Amino acid sequence: MTPPEGPLPLGATIGILGGGQLGRMSAMAAARLGYRTHVFAPDADSPGMQVATTHTRADYADTQALARFAAAVDVVTFEFENVPAATLAALEGRVPCRPGLGVLAIGQDRLEEKRFLERAGVPVAPWAPVHDESGLAAALERIGLPAVLKTTRLGYDGRGQAVLRDPADAAAAFARLQPKPLVLEAFVPFVAEVSAIVARGADGAVAVYDVTENIHRHHILDLSFAPARIPPVVAEAARGHVRRLAESLGLVGLMALEMFLLADGTLLGNEIAPRPHNSGHWTMDACACGQFEQHVRAVAGLPLGDPARHADAVMGNLVGPEGLAAWTGLLAAPGVAPHWYGKAEAREGRKLGHANLLMPLDSLAARPAGWRPPVFAG
Amino acid sequence: MTPPEGPLPLGATIGILGGGQLGRMSAMAAARLGYRTHVFAPDADSPGMQVATTHTRADYADTQALARFAAAVDVVTFEFENVPAATLAALEGRVPCRPGLGVLAIGQDRLEEKRFLERAGVPVAPWAPVHDESGLAAALERIGLPAVLKTTRLGYDGRGQAVLRDPADAAAAFARLQPKPLVLEAFVPFVAEVSAIVARGADGAVAVYDVTENIHRHHILDLSFAPARIPPVVAEAARGHVRRLAESLGLVGLMALEMFLLADGTLLGNEIAPRPHNSGHWTMDACACGQFEQHVRAVAGLPLGDPARHADAVMGNLVGPEGLAAWTGLLAAPGVAPHWYGKAEAREGRKLGHANLLMPLDSLAARPAGWRPPVFAG
Repeated sequence: MTPPEGPLPLGATIGILGGGQLGRMSAMAAARLGYRTHVFAPDADSPGMQVATTHTRADYADTQALARFAAAVDVVTFEFENVPAATLAALEGRVPCRPGLGVLAIGQDRLEEKRFLERAGVPVAPWAPVHDESGLAAALERIGLPAVLKTTRLGYDGRGQAVLRDPADAAAAFARLQPKPLVLEAFVPFVAEVSAIVARGADGAVAVYDVTENIHRHHILDLSFAPARIPPVVAEAARGHVRRLAESLGLVGLMALEMFLLADGTLLGNEIAPRPHNSGHWTMDACACGQFEQHVRAVAGLPLGDPARHADAVMGNLVGPEGLAAWTGLLAAPGVAPHWYGKAEAREGRKLGHANLLMPLDSLAARPAGWRPPVFAG
Repeated sequence: MTPPEGPLPLGATIGILGGGQLGRMSAMAAARLGYRTHVFAPDADSPGMQVATTHTRADYADTQALARFAAAVDVVTFEFENVPAATLAALEGRVPCRPGLGVLAIGQDRLEEKRFLERAGVPVAPWAPVHDESGLAAALERIGLPAVLKTTRLGYDGRGQAVLRDPADAAAAFARLQPKPLVLEAFVPFVAEVSAIVARGADGAVAVYDVTENIHRHHILDLSFAPARIPPVVAEAARGHVRRLAESLGLVGLMALEMFLLADGTLLGNEIAPRPHNSGHWTMDACACGQFEQHVRAVAGLPLGDPARHADAVMGNLVGPEGLAAWTGLLAAPGVAPHWYGKAEAREGRKLGHANLLMPLDSLAARPAGWRPPVFAG
């Protein structure tokens, strides 16, 4: 459906597909901007439902519930890219969806994603699609070892991938990973993982946040440092990459790009996410307009907010039982803004919350290699 | 009921009496800390209900609804001091209430308030209770003119008061103002209006925010500047005043004190509010822990958060049709964090939202007298 002309009026309702923490924080940002929210998700008592004005608990394939949802909201967005494309397709005829199906589809398929990155001028590590075992052998021949074999769909937080270091690993990994097809990627010797987040408004304006440096643990984001400690020319290149992605897609919404930084300063695009991103949580407390508000602004057709950073920040994820155990200490730590997601169980590997440590501008530049703020010392 | 030992567990429910913007922003802060919220208010579709996990729409005198509410929540707080004392009294036997009835009662009665301020060592302007016309004459005799005649109950935003400049004004003002009794206060020649906000935790710890300088228009707060441009010794005195108030009450919660600053540096206590206060809205974006989160921390028995200010800030209230008209421009202004309350109508004199302009630390000290940030220039 054609998006509305001009900004969504105050008091209008933003529909959010997905009830996780990203939907929760988007809903709170929408409320700050004077909007109502309606979360649609299959899970009972999801984090997003706890703060939304209204919610629908239904399966993403429930066409009747989707029709009622479409009729009850003024615009639809999604909080994660694994919402079935058919769900968004069912809504697009009835209510404006931002971002739309085309953007969702790219985020759902690693092959589409790589082709899109290359078309937009973002270099990626050597890769090859793998449809069967003979294709895997050919791909290994071309790309060499070490390499990473990944599912092309439904992967997140390191799920659905296997590192291949020996040709003997290949067959078992191929058999295990589902669904097919897979993609083989060269394992690149990166010196840092960084990410950049861009928003593009309905008016075509673009806002880019400062580049973030990310540290993972067990394939899950552990810490994000803003700003990344990278040369200005590299930061500018990273910002240019996400800007081109947003413009080439005609994005109306928010998009994150994870990149590998090589020793020679090359940035290789790794993954995109067409939504608020874990590595942008620091913006909630260190920018006048954080990523969730920015997302809502784009979806609502408002002018984009100011992405300037007024403090240095380190975001620490709170994951699983260990994250739960750290909560009380973080509450008492100076300069820390804590965020908890309202999940019922502290299962291993589950993101339960995060905390933003705010520091004076430019204080992070002097950090030693491998430095970890004591407050996140686990 | 005896408050729980230790902090409220994650996922517990905080009950909030009142559905206005202060309840709304408290509910969002509670969600960030991992709590559910249940707003109890008589109004349909109130701002607080739009973001709470659950709500009860019922009259404050509905004892059955109050009993159900008490059974459904783990702790109760209030968002404004005009909740009937009987309502809190009905709840106190069933569920912990923070702050409690004693604190609420002081905030509801200007005579109690003045006596309390004096007992706590906070000087106030000369005042006298006025029960009848002859009492008014005696009070005028003692206090002189100009003076302000005020109701002792249910006054806010300049409602329920009259400035007396001529003895001939007195009888009409006395007849008009309801409910009785009234209080006559000397009109003090202040050079600035300032406020300070204190929180006291269940563990007795106290946190005080930086003193704010407030500009009113039509008796409604218009702008707050943080920090106030006052000598450090005066700021320290103001902070000491609110600290003593919190400690002498054994407060568990948040309290604001509005003060008049005289030319000789004297601070006179004007009004207290035992809840988050409009003049503290700047803390939402300029402190790691804003006043709403601080309020929730105290109510939940958590350690208090860090009240340090990491930016200078100017808060501008968005009031009535003029505030609505300013919204779009504020959305596009750099460095501005906007907050809208979700009220259905933009009636004259109604607080609809606010915006925080963030500025570098120490930049406000150099502002010229009477300076108004261009973004709030109406």
